[in-house]
Amino acid sequence: MKIKGIDHIGIAVENIDKAMGFYRKALNLELNGGEDILERHLKVGFIETGNTRLELIESTSNESAIAKYIATKGGGIHHICLAVDNIDEALAQMKKEGYALIDNEPRPGAEGSRIVFIHPKSSGGVLIELKEYANKENQS
Amino acid sequence: MKIKGIDHIGIAVENIDKAMGFYRKALNLELNGGEDILERHLKVGFIETGNTRLELIESTSNESAIAKYIATKGGGIHHICLAVDNIDEALAQMKKEGYALIDNEPRPGAEGSRIVFIHPKSSGGVLIELKEYANKENQS
Repeated sequence: MKIKGIDHIGIAVENIDKAMGFYRKALNLELNGGEDILERHLKVGFIETGNTRLELIESTSNESAIAKYIATKGGGIHHICLAVDNIDEALAQMKKEGYALIDNEPRPGAEGSRIVFIHPKSSGGVLIELKEYANKENQS
Repeated sequence: MKIKGIDHIGIAVENIDKAMGFYRKALNLELNGGEDILERHLKVGFIETGNTRLELIESTSNESAIAKYIATKGGGIHHICLAVDNIDEALAQMKKEGYALIDNEPRPGAEGSRIVFIHPKSSGGVLIELKEYANKENQS
């Protein structure tokens, strides 16, 4: 597996607009893109920081994983997303070595990417997303 | 305040050597530096990923903040560290605007830096460290 860097840090928020009050006023950071991920009942907004982005994640349904996270833990840092050059190879390696995975096959992520989540029980309590960009030339 | 990027993501671990088993074998990542922070009863190890680093944080005393974090929450993502150009200006601005801070004055961080932690109650549950490098030319 070849890690290309940290694509983003996922942060669960109750409301993106409200959360941006802090990021704008306290840190002088701005939203730069975002999208609705309908099939996962999520809305995300990206903040550029200079290198790795922050992804603010808001739930649009009580049934989403983020709604359950906020209900039990409140808002906060949810996951780290690592960019990989080849998600199929990465997934095959993780399976071969017996790591616990949330996804058995790559599924669609934001921005046309393909993603897989590793289960925190394999990674010391850290929820890790692996992401392969739709266009590998854009991979940071 | 001018954010220069995300310097690192702090991850609380019970034992750095044990945690590296996962980062090495599963993700093909390696430790690249680290130090003992004696006054905070911590030992840290840095992992280069290509852009933002991961900082594995191990407690060397039951009294440290990390020991308490692990005792209550288990290991996991602990904080995000943002590099700033001027920590004194950043701190003055945060104080003026009434944000809750863990540190009232900059204190020594890893690598000769000066750091301040923002209280999660001001930042939607996210523990944020602001860091000014000892040598600003090295700031990433």
